[in-house]
Amino acid sequence: MKPSGEDQAVPAAGPWEECFQAAVQLALRAGQIIRKALTEEKRVSTKTSAADLVTETDHLVEDLIISELRERFPSHRFIAEEAAASGAKCVLTHSPTWIIDPIDGTCNFVHRFPTVAVSIGFAVRQELEFGVIYHCTEERLYTGRRGRGAFCNGQRLRVSGETDLSKALVLTEIGPRRDPATLKLFLSNMEQLLHAKAHGVRVIGSSTLALCHLASGAADAYYQFGLHCWDLAAATVIIREAGGIVIDTSGGPLDLMACRVVAAGTREMAMLIAQALQTINYGRDDEK
Amino acid sequence: MKPSGEDQAVPAAGPWEECFQAAVQLALRAGQIIRKALTEEKRVSTKTSAADLVTETDHLVEDLIISELRERFPSHRFIAEEAAASGAKCVLTHSPTWIIDPIDGTCNFVHRFPTVAVSIGFAVRQELEFGVIYHCTEERLYTGRRGRGAFCNGQRLRVSGETDLSKALVLTEIGPRRDPATLKLFLSNMEQLLHAKAHGVRVIGSSTLALCHLASGAADAYYQFGLHCWDLAAATVIIREAGGIVIDTSGGPLDLMACRVVAAGTREMAMLIAQALQTINYGRDDEK
Repeated sequence: MKPSGEDQAVPAAGPWEECFQAAVQLALRAGQIIRKALTEEKRVSTKTSAADLVTETDHLVEDLIISELRERFPSHRFIAEEAAASGAKCVLTHSPTWIIDPIDGTCNFVHRFPTVAVSIGFAVRQELEFGVIYHCTEERLYTGRRGRGAFCNGQRLRVSGETDLSKALVLTEIGPRRDPATLKLFLSNMEQLLHAKAHGVRVIGSSTLALCHLASGAADAYYQFGLHCWDLAAATVIIREAGGIVIDTSGGPLDLMACRVVAAGTREMAMLIAQALQTINYGRDDEK
Repeated sequence: MKPSGEDQAVPAAGPWEECFQAAVQLALRAGQIIRKALTEEKRVSTKTSAADLVTETDHLVEDLIISELRERFPSHRFIAEEAAASGAKCVLTHSPTWIIDPIDGTCNFVHRFPTVAVSIGFAVRQELEFGVIYHCTEERLYTGRRGRGAFCNGQRLRVSGETDLSKALVLTEIGPRRDPATLKLFLSNMEQLLHAKAHGVRVIGSSTLALCHLASGAADAYYQFGLHCWDLAAATVIIREAGGIVIDTSGGPLDLMACRVVAAGTREMAMLIAQALQTINYGRDDEK
C-alpha cells in the first residue's frame, strides 16, 4: 500500500517550481538582449504621452517571454505591458497568470541610463505566487516566492524596520501623465514628505527597481500613482517575502489593478506615507 | 650639447601624473572602506539641517585621503567637505589644491542605498587639472585629465549630443536646505522642466554620480543649487573631457565656489536649462 496522500504530495520545491525556474531563465535571457540593445541606436515611439515611451526592444522582449511561456504552459494567461498598450484587456482571473513588464524603465533604457529591469510576476487564483526581477546592467536577480523568502543573487533580503518618517529615505516615480494638474499633485506630494523632514526623496526611473531597493532595506518607503499591475506584481511578492508591506494609497489592502501603491518596511511607515498623500486618479488597469 | 629644452621637458605622462595616480589609488582604497562600512551599523550626526548628514566613515575616509596626500605632497593645499564643515576656509589659491568629498551621497550611504562615491579633484593655478570619482558599490572608476579625455574603467566617455529639451533626461538633487521657501523653488524648477516636456527628471542622491552619468551620455543635463565645490571639482573635468559643458546657472562661466551649476552635453541644452531655472541662493563656499 502506498503511504497515504503521496499522490497529492506537493514536491519539495513547491507546485510552481517549473514556472519559477522558467521565469528566472527568461529574465536572464531578456536581460542579455536588453544589455546588448543598450549599446545600439533605438527607434522610439510614444504611447499615452510624450513621456510614455516604447522601443522595438520592449516588443521583442515581451514577445520572446510570452511565446516561450505559452509553449510550455499553454493553459496559462498573460497580462503584459505592450499587449495592454495594444488593447489587450488586463483581467486577473483564477487561472495561472503571468504579469510581465519586458523593460521597466523604458525612458532610462532610451537614454542608456543604467537603471533598467525585466519584471515577471505569477499569480494563481488571484494570489501572487512568485516574482522575478532582473536588473539588466548590474546583473542583479531579485526573486521572491510566497512563503519562501526573497533573495538578490542568492542573498536573503530584509526590509528596513524604520517607523519614523523624519529618518526615512522615500522613493517615488513621476508617472506617465504630465498635464499641469497631475504635475501639481505629484510635486505637492513630494513637498509634503520633504516638509515632514524625510531624509530624502529619490526618483530613479524604474518602479520595479525602486521597489527592489525597498525590499533590500536600502529605502524605507515607496509610493506612486500611475504605475501598472506589471510594475507591481513581481515586486509585491519580493517585498512581502522580505518582511515589508504593500498597500493601497488609501491605507487599505493592495488593489493590483488600481494604478497606485504605498510600500514600506513597516506598517507604521506605510500608513504615515498613505496619510500624507493626495490622490492622483489614473483609473484602473482592468477598466482600460 | 643637450637637445634644447630637455631640462624643461614635460614627461610623456604629464606634469601631475604622480598626483593623478595617487588620487586613483586613494579613491579605490577609500571605496573599499566605504563598501565595508555599508554593511555595518552607523552613528549618524546632522550638520546644517536634519537632511545634511555625516558619519564616522566620512571623517575616517577624509582623514585617510588627506593625511596620505599631505605626506606625499607637503606643499599642496586641501579643500574637503568635513574640514569645511568644521570651519576650515574654502579658498582656491594658485597653489596645487586637492578638492575632496570623502563620501558623496552620505544620505544614501546612511540608508545603504547603493549610490555612493568618493570624489577627488585637483586644481593648479585655479584651473582644474584632473578628477577621479569612484562609484563604491558598482566599482566604477571615472577619471578625467585636462586635455587627455575622460574614462570609466578604461572606456572612453562621451556626452549626449541632445539639444532638444523635450527629448532630454535631466538630473538634479534636492539640496540640503528644506525650509518651505527653498523647497518651493526646488519644486517649481522641477515643474518648469516637466512642463517643458523633458522625458524625465531623476534624483539619485549623489551629485557626483549624476554628473558622471551625464559625462557618459546616459543623461542630457544636470542642474543643482546647494552643491559644493567638492561635489563639482572632479566631475567638472570629467564632463569637459567627455565633450560636455559646465556653466553657472546664470548662463555665465562656472564659478566653482558659487554653490550652483548647470551641466549638459551641449551648450544649447545647458542654456535652455539655465533659462528655465529660478535661482536658489545658497551663498558661496568661499564666504562661509
